Amino acid sequence: MTDNSRNEIPAGAVSLADYERLASERLDAAAWAFLSGGAGDEITMRWNREAFDRLQLLPRVLRGTAGVDARLEMFGRAFAHPILLAPVAYHRLAHPHGELGTAAAAAAQEAGLVLSTLSSETLEDVAAVAGPRRWLQLYLQPERTDTLDLVRRAEAAGYEALVLTVDAPINGVRDRERRAGFAVPPGITAVNLLRYAKPPSASLDQLMALAPTWEDVEWLIGETTLPVILKGILHPDDAELAVASGAAGIIVSNHGGRTLDTLPPTLDLLPAVVGQIDGRIPVLMDGGIRRGTDVLKAMALGATAVLVGRPIVYGLAVAGPLGVAHVLRLLRDEFAIAMALTGCATLADIPRAGLLRR
Amino acid sequence: MTDNSRNEIPAGAVSLADYERLASERLDAAAWAFLSGGAGDEITMRWNREAFDRLQLLPRVLRGTAGVDARLEMFGRAFAHPILLAPVAYHRLAHPHGELGTAAAAAAQEAGLVLSTLSSETLEDVAAVAGPRRWLQLYLQPERTDTLDLVRRAEAAGYEALVLTVDAPINGVRDRERRAGFAVPPGITAVNLLRYAKPPSASLDQLMALAPTWEDVEWLIGETTLPVILKGILHPDDAELAVASGAAGIIVSNHGGRTLDTLPPTLDLLPAVVGQIDGRIPVLMDGGIRRGTDVLKAMALGATAVLVGRPIVYGLAVAGPLGVAHVLRLLRDEFAIAMALTGCATLADIPRAGLLRR
Amino acid sequence: MTDNSRNEIPAGAVSLADYERLASERLDAAAWAFLSGGAGDEITMRWNREAFDRLQLLPRVLRGTAGVDARLEMFGRAFAHPILLAPVAYHRLAHPHGELGTAAAAAAQEAGLVLSTLSSETLEDVAAVAGPRRWLQLYLQPERTDTLDLVRRAEAAGYEALVLTVDAPINGVRDRERRAGFAVPPGITAVNLLRYAKPPSASLDQLMALAPTWEDVEWLIGETTLPVILKGILHPDDAELAVASGAAGIIVSNHGGRTLDTLPPTLDLLPAVVGQIDGRIPVLMDGGIRRGTDVLKAMALGATAVLVGRPIVYGLAVAGPLGVAHVLRLLRDEFAIAMALTGCATLADIPRAGLLRR
Amino acid sequence: MTDNSRNEIPAGAVSLADYERLASERLDAAAWAFLSGGAGDEITMRWNREAFDRLQLLPRVLRGTAGVDARLEMFGRAFAHPILLAPVAYHRLAHPHGELGTAAAAAAQEAGLVLSTLSSETLEDVAAVAGPRRWLQLYLQPERTDTLDLVRRAEAAGYEALVLTVDAPINGVRDRERRAGFAVPPGITAVNLLRYAKPPSASLDQLMALAPTWEDVEWLIGETTLPVILKGILHPDDAELAVASGAAGIIVSNHGGRTLDTLPPTLDLLPAVVGQIDGRIPVLMDGGIRRGTDVLKAMALGATAVLVGRPIVYGLAVAGPLGVAHVLRLLRDEFAIAMALTGCATLADIPRAGLLRR
Repeated sequence: MTDNSRNEIPAGAVSLADYERLASERLDAAAWAFLSGGAGDEITMRWNREAFDRLQLLPRVLRGTAGVDARLEMFGRAFAHPILLAPVAYHRLAHPHGELGTAAAAAAQEAGLVLSTLSSETLEDVAAVAGPRRWLQLYLQPERTDTLDLVRRAEAAGYEALVLTVDAPINGVRDRERRAGFAVPPGITAVNLLRYAKPPSASLDQLMALAPTWEDVEWLIGETTLPVILKGILHPDDAELAVASGAAGIIVSNHGGRTLDTLPPTLDLLPAVVGQIDGRIPVLMDGGIRRGTDVLKAMALGATAVLVGRPIVYGLAVAGPLGVAHVLRLLRDEFAIAMALTGCATLADIPRAGLLRR
Repeated sequence: MTDNSRNEIPAGAVSLADYERLASERLDAAAWAFLSGGAGDEITMRWNREAFDRLQLLPRVLRGTAGVDARLEMFGRAFAHPILLAPVAYHRLAHPHGELGTAAAAAAQEAGLVLSTLSSETLEDVAAVAGPRRWLQLYLQPERTDTLDLVRRAEAAGYEALVLTVDAPINGVRDRERRAGFAVPPGITAVNLLRYAKPPSASLDQLMALAPTWEDVEWLIGETTLPVILKGILHPDDAELAVASGAAGIIVSNHGGRTLDTLPPTLDLLPAVVGQIDGRIPVLMDGGIRRGTDVLKAMALGATAVLVGRPIVYGLAVAGPLGVAHVLRLLRDEFAIAMALTGCATLADIPRAGLLRR
Repeated sequence: MTDNSRNEIPAGAVSLADYERLASERLDAAAWAFLSGGAGDEITMRWNREAFDRLQLLPRVLRGTAGVDARLEMFGRAFAHPILLAPVAYHRLAHPHGELGTAAAAAAQEAGLVLSTLSSETLEDVAAVAGPRRWLQLYLQPERTDTLDLVRRAEAAGYEALVLTVDAPINGVRDRERRAGFAVPPGITAVNLLRYAKPPSASLDQLMALAPTWEDVEWLIGETTLPVILKGILHPDDAELAVASGAAGIIVSNHGGRTLDTLPPTLDLLPAVVGQIDGRIPVLMDGGIRRGTDVLKAMALGATAVLVGRPIVYGLAVAGPLGVAHVLRLLRDEFAIAMALTGCATLADIPRAGLLRR
Repeated sequence: MTDNSRNEIPAGAVSLADYERLASERLDAAAWAFLSGGAGDEITMRWNREAFDRLQLLPRVLRGTAGVDARLEMFGRAFAHPILLAPVAYHRLAHPHGELGTAAAAAAQEAGLVLSTLSSETLEDVAAVAGPRRWLQLYLQPERTDTLDLVRRAEAAGYEALVLTVDAPINGVRDRERRAGFAVPPGITAVNLLRYAKPPSASLDQLMALAPTWEDVEWLIGETTLPVILKGILHPDDAELAVASGAAGIIVSNHGGRTLDTLPPTLDLLPAVVGQIDGRIPVLMDGGIRRGTDVLKAMALGATAVLVGRPIVYGLAVAGPLGVAHVLRLLRDEFAIAMALTGCATLADIPRAGLLRR
């Protein structure tokens, strides 16, 4: 495991890119490969970023907005801003405080937290330090009773939504991880799942037999009163099926480029999905968000909110909970400045047409 | 502050790019970051240049122009050529002579000067050494009485136009500047504004409350007999509003890529704005001009004149007033050669169609 | 000749790109230039790869495929998967076991083998260790009787198809090869052809006089009961002529970018050829396949199967037969994972529309 | 002057790119800057190459061409192949033999020679060693009597055509040349012009007064029985005017990117000019030709012949006349191979449609 008991914000860390660079220097090579790497040649990872960088903003001037307010309502709850923490496995790879540190920092920045099933601290322990806006990400377990147990624990621990990952029935081809010889180090485990049946480490065929289907989604939705959000929707027709299944929301995601390489960048797919959903349920997105202008662009294309993954663990690796809080602060501030410079006083002011230019 | 009492044109400085390179070597890191940097990932800054480099010139041959004459009329005044100095803050960061050196060099090269409100020499002192074609750039001050005082001083000091910046109610996210830990050094101040109320250093909301509106523009225009030019117009609809507000001219500008990153390159926006204005008032532009061919392309797309910012302070940093004069001379000569090689004897000969090819 | 009696899979070899890098380190410079090089500036070689990388996959989710089965039927025979070994000359340049090692590894991975006429082991010796799915690649010999003798030997040795190369009447301009001073080293020869008349080493005109024509193709097809597959078809009209000539199949190929530089990438030409053929005969393709997702994309564009050339000899150079087997295993596994992640249980499930996005 | 009495073809020189690299090592910095450099940021120079590299060849197969014959007729004369030497000033910068060496090598390779007016050997001396297909490039001299004298000398020395440069009334902005402090060294002069009035070294206006016009072109054509070819035509309308003026041919040229930067690449302009001319007079082209496939592409777009400039002086710099001959040989051979691999037995077989693909 990386040795980083550091808890100071380094001089010169003024953007998320700085945290990425610093994390690459401070994490050990295997953890860096696991946390930063993507599938195959990491083309989708690169495309996720390029899609944001390519999109132009063309704001109006002299509109006179008195201030900037990024609040929103989602699933019947108020959020201070639309930036959530995406689920990432094993935060203790980045810092001894693991998800406990991350959750505390998220609470301090009023950011919604989506905890990974594969967290290295129990969902109950995380709940104890997390803010009120916490969701639990789920993979369906080999046994439905185990899945149900997870759901009940999430409900009991005050998680307010379930995020079901639908795009990763099996792992992607992670070359960097394999080249670095990454293995989860001793002392770090998927503590939430210790009591459940393990998925077979065996053949692809056996793994695929466990791959979730729309029927599983409907079953899960029927078993809980929590809103169920489907993460990993890319195709408008799947977005439609999500609504039909009773999903409360969807996350347009390509798993951060970690499953199938050359999946399209999420930003490019967002408009068609948003058009298909047409406001019936919230459409969130992740993949490549590193700048306040990126958040603004996602919102202008119709996203209800966005999730940020790798930068969070980079912040954790560089400066512990303080680093996570700083990463979130930087992104919030940049987003507020981007709103101000485009004359948007509230999220509702972000124009769905006319602001973006290709 | 950078130590550069140098006042010699270096061997091998034959283009504006050479001055940029030399300035990066001679300025201290923080001043270089402030003067050369842009917002965010500096994508807009790069796009500004690429837009010029991408555009092709397809001239006719054997037209037999007897000479090249770059004179123009603008706001009722004659200019020797269409290249003006864009407003840049704190020239003393580049050289001890500051704006006094710049203004003298501009006069020697018969170039229009737009002095920044944030100049490090008083507008009155600059007026004393400047040529007749001098304008003053303004930010609206927190108190209208202070703004009015500035206007009166400009009028008294013989500034012939006011350039109101409309695209920067707040500062952009300047990572390079912040990484370099830039602060205006002791001994350099915004001397024009010492007597006025300062904008709150406080919250974004408070700053935004001071952001100018079209109403402020109309008020300012009503208070002065000087032509008021709006700098920072990008959208054709805002160009129309500028005419309606009584503005005497506009400058298509993205603030040199220093405010909101991923704003479109100004050259790409110029044709739509020119089309909207349709000759009613002059349309100037800045952003990325480094070559005589760039000036020609802007003119062929309908610009009345162009402004050059960073290269001026690079010239000042490298060789003091002589450097500024040399930068202007290089650009004028390149522009004359570009006119000659495209068969344009006067600015009126620059074809609005047929010369450019994408 | 390169000294590589190595027969161990190196740590960190987790993708075909790793084998390329390792082979470049282990092969001597001349052999590396011959095996890895292309014609001219190697633009077509680069395009072959870029065409795959550019194409996006947009799969559906939650489809629930119980497993992955890559079997196919081709020319009346069952294949375990659609990945064949492309003909490459002189495998002994890469490893002392030469084609004997390659063939044994291919058999172990149930991969179809296309042996080059210019193999450094006799086609009879290779047949003795090869699996049942073996084809022989042919160049027409200067004398038809020699060509016929080759055909009879292929039939006798159990080769199940003949692959006639139609795109290389003469060698391309191979700069890297010539710069490296490549010559086939002593002890390595085109053993299959020792007894036949040699093509004149003389003038281009004499070589062109031997260039095969459609008439030669028809003659060859008339002389054998084996299916004849034409390799090097790019134009849909030539694909049509291939059907008319009686060819049993075609391979869309630009000879791996080794003949005429700036030939289009094969992936870009595949759809038009597939559309022209419209299922009448199998359409295979090669050129640039390095990833399981590449195989999937070729199939989604209508390829019946694909061939892989350079990576095979890179595997042989790096780790002998084990390396070849590992290269094939990696590609098969990646392809199975790509099928799983796009919800394709069988090759027939690979959608011909809707999966790909440009 | 560069010291290179070398007269041996270096090992590893197998393409024109090799000669470029070797010349950059062997020429002194100033001569290299003069010979290899272009105007401004050398964007046009780069575009010239990229236009060729981008264009794809899509040949047919199995056409059975018995041989390759690159002969053509132009201005009533037979040429062995369509590759001519473009006019380049001061060959003695590259080698003590200067144009005498170049002309001898061109004759050996049966290549048409276009001698620059600014040659460092007299046109009469060059004629004595040159082959029969020699043309003289002209700039109009300040005095018409001097121009006429040049014409008469060209006629007397057996030059078979005059090439009038129409695109360079003044020099371009050659930054590399100026940075390197290039000046024509002592002992090298424009020997052809010693007896004539010099153009004023003075102002741009004076130089422009001497810029040739269509009237000058008509005058020149009226004064000589030699065919007059206009070099530097880019616009189809100027091509039409060339026909009207009585020009015998035109050369689509952007002066190798040495005059106005961001002129379009010549290859991209060729089709429109060819379409406009529609076979009435020959259309030649230059700019960026480095490969036999480039020659083929120019011909497929309708060029009658092509000219090659810088590679010739690179060959001269690297290995004297032998180097020039080798450069020409490489290009001829590559062109023959490209013809063979695209099934073209003669230049007339090069298809004007269907071979190229964008």
